[in-house]
Amino acid sequence: MATRRIAEILRNAQPQEQVTIKGWVRTARELKEFTFVEVNDGSFLANLQVVLDGSLANYDTLLQEITTGASVEISGVLVESPAKGQRIELKASEVRVYGGADPETYPLQKKRHSFEFLRTIGHLRSRTNTIGAVFRVRNACAAAIHQFFQERGFLWVHTPIITANDCEGAGELFSVTSFNLKNIPLTPQQTVDYTQDFFGKPAYLTVSGQLEAEIMAMAFRDVYTFGPTFRAENSNTSRHLAEFWMIEPEMAFCDLEGNMQLAEEFLKFVFASVLEACPEDMEFFNQRINDTVLETAQNIIHNQFERVTYTEAIRLLEKADKKFEYPVNWGLDLQSEHERYLAEDLFKKPVIVTDYPVEIKAFYMRLNDDEKTVRAMDVLAPNIGEIIGGSQREERLEILEKRIQAQGMNPEDLWWYLELRRYGTVPHAGFGLGFERLVQFMTGMSNIRDVIPFPRAPLTIEF
Amino acid sequence: MATRRIAEILRNAQPQEQVTIKGWVRTARELKEFTFVEVNDGSFLANLQVVLDGSLANYDTLLQEITTGASVEISGVLVESPAKGQRIELKASEVRVYGGADPETYPLQKKRHSFEFLRTIGHLRSRTNTIGAVFRVRNACAAAIHQFFQERGFLWVHTPIITANDCEGAGELFSVTSFNLKNIPLTPQQTVDYTQDFFGKPAYLTVSGQLEAEIMAMAFRDVYTFGPTFRAENSNTSRHLAEFWMIEPEMAFCDLEGNMQLAEEFLKFVFASVLEACPEDMEFFNQRINDTVLETAQNIIHNQFERVTYTEAIRLLEKADKKFEYPVNWGLDLQSEHERYLAEDLFKKPVIVTDYPVEIKAFYMRLNDDEKTVRAMDVLAPNIGEIIGGSQREERLEILEKRIQAQGMNPEDLWWYLELRRYGTVPHAGFGLGFERLVQFMTGMSNIRDVIPFPRAPLTIEF
Repeated sequence: MATRRIAEILRNAQPQEQVTIKGWVRTARELKEFTFVEVNDGSFLANLQVVLDGSLANYDTLLQEITTGASVEISGVLVESPAKGQRIELKASEVRVYGGADPETYPLQKKRHSFEFLRTIGHLRSRTNTIGAVFRVRNACAAAIHQFFQERGFLWVHTPIITANDCEGAGELFSVTSFNLKNIPLTPQQTVDYTQDFFGKPAYLTVSGQLEAEIMAMAFRDVYTFGPTFRAENSNTSRHLAEFWMIEPEMAFCDLEGNMQLAEEFLKFVFASVLEACPEDMEFFNQRINDTVLETAQNIIHNQFERVTYTEAIRLLEKADKKFEYPVNWGLDLQSEHERYLAEDLFKKPVIVTDYPVEIKAFYMRLNDDEKTVRAMDVLAPNIGEIIGGSQREERLEILEKRIQAQGMNPEDLWWYLELRRYGTVPHAGFGLGFERLVQFMTGMSNIRDVIPFPRAPLTIEF
Repeated sequence: MATRRIAEILRNAQPQEQVTIKGWVRTARELKEFTFVEVNDGSFLANLQVVLDGSLANYDTLLQEITTGASVEISGVLVESPAKGQRIELKASEVRVYGGADPETYPLQKKRHSFEFLRTIGHLRSRTNTIGAVFRVRNACAAAIHQFFQERGFLWVHTPIITANDCEGAGELFSVTSFNLKNIPLTPQQTVDYTQDFFGKPAYLTVSGQLEAEIMAMAFRDVYTFGPTFRAENSNTSRHLAEFWMIEPEMAFCDLEGNMQLAEEFLKFVFASVLEACPEDMEFFNQRINDTVLETAQNIIHNQFERVTYTEAIRLLEKADKKFEYPVNWGLDLQSEHERYLAEDLFKKPVIVTDYPVEIKAFYMRLNDDEKTVRAMDVLAPNIGEIIGGSQREERLEILEKRIQAQGMNPEDLWWYLELRRYGTVPHAGFGLGFERLVQFMTGMSNIRDVIPFPRAPLTIEF
């Protein structure tokens, strides 16, 4: 008989159906007449309850083998469950144990484990309720992102991971080399002889695919990246990873208005899709992890995002009946406390802040006519803070050259980026967001290391 | 008026419709009474032909500005085209030029450029017919891969890019470090002091996500990776990249039979999806690049894959009426010439070869009872050669430990991989394929560097 997934059985199956399941035992509870076994196959938050009794030929042996963590294949008939909270259960007629799990040493026993502890057993933690739910939501979120862009005719483009561009924050880059680190070849001038390295020059792990995505947008109009990016920042926080996935759409013939519209549609679509795909998991997060999870999702889905310029935002913050740690004045980079005040206290819904001071934003953002601000945007959401950052890009060659020089960068390193403005330049715009941050906000998980399968952070590279 | 994509117009629009398009000029041809402008927006292989004439207010200025490479926005009415090979054309009533392209310097002129030359202008080459078609097919192929797995309940899992595992071929790894290469800290024993590096130990770029995918399969049953992998191999060939994307499904409670079935369904689905999504591009490849492209796709879609064991394959090769460069004997790692003979000459359709000698395959492949062969499989296709490699994994702890030791590896480095066999082990299987190889085979492109936007290879790291 074909195996069925437990999610599908719990959602659709009816009493009297014969089914076969395969999965792992979460708990086994021996009573006088029979044994309840909770089986999970990772497809669903809830377990399927299986009833074993003496009618099974090997009942006594099975009781020895069926312990928490064991892998099983069970066939039988579904019956209405007398127990509360479950519609059906499986009366086993045939049970096979593939692999046991010694209760003396199996690290996941029937008790609450801390997330810190679970991180040390990254090879097993997905078999817990919370981490299992996280990775189902993570998958649903990733699938929704692809669906959103593909339906709108965007091409998924793979921008390079290894890059020679160090233009966005040199201190935070990982180097990539095929040198033996014990024996780095030097030039006569005692500098590193990169001509002998694999790429013939210094190479790094990318911090963003945006500049290359702009190349692709200048041929295909609408593209997006969805790939890993890196920061060698030595920050051991609950919001930082050294390796994380980013999504970066880029659109030719698009201004900041179109960019804001896409960002709003994007967030609404992704949150709504995940609520539809994983309602039980999302309900679980709301009950057990963070009780603002569903409210935040609904807020994003159902409200029209507010839009204010940075200058207006500063005025609103100055008028605020609230004392901020960082005093508010024009030119300030908005801090988390300011962002949360705007989204949570003042507007009580997502806010897009635009037109930031040129000094605090990147060189590629389009300069406004006031020459003081650029066409940047940050999307702030209640209970979350900044979730998306983007801009209209500077498409005017001379202004871009000046801004690159003003940052002390060498325009020659970006010759190809400049040539996009020399040949058939167009207004274009895009935004970026960290995938793990999105999943973290969506699930309410307090540590970002618990929403990526195998987190990379300072001194953290296990599995 | 909302802008429409040229693909959509050429497929669906009717004469008399008013449309606005945005894109780049491929060619402009001035005749006595009017000017033909071919515009492309990256959505379609064919250009939309636009007719400009003196009824436009700024006709004379436009003729100066509208050169190959210029970016334009054009509104007008669609009319039936008198020209051969095109159903409709656009009679312009309003034209705006966003950015020009000096014909003296714009590198893409109306002539055939070599792929070698185009690689030097990676920021512009997507604006050519062939490379444009490649990246549309690449996107369609990637989207089909996600669709295939998502529809079957597989979770997309993100396995780590930076890893401390160097177990699959130590010589080919890139190192990742936050050290300043000019100043590597040493221990008193003059070895590299990795405790001072970002991760506290040697770190590399991953060569495969398989081992971590197995972790995830042991909780969610069916998972797949789709992410970048790396080889520091110094091979300057038309089939190798230092950075490429791989797809690696992994299934718990699955044997080699199930693995073969999935691989066959997968290839059929992906080729059929791309033919459906990009018929014009695929036709173009068949006409201009490689005339076996469509035949190969149809062969994969419509034939049941042949299945032979390695031992049978060797017997067939020994009987072959053909002289091979590498003499055939049991124990030989099949070479390209042997694989092509089997798929092209003998079976004339895809072949799955299974149960290879243990000596030539990886430690994690399940040992057969003969102890001479392992449950490996390679999928070979006509005109392509090996396209997929996979295996049933060794799920028995003692045998796996022995095989790890036999390879001279330290089992402690893989403690977590071994623990998967200690706690609830199950038969499981999976396969892997290189995404760029797949796109290369699908399009018939002769150099793999032309199917990835920004290729990474020895001394090649531009853009």
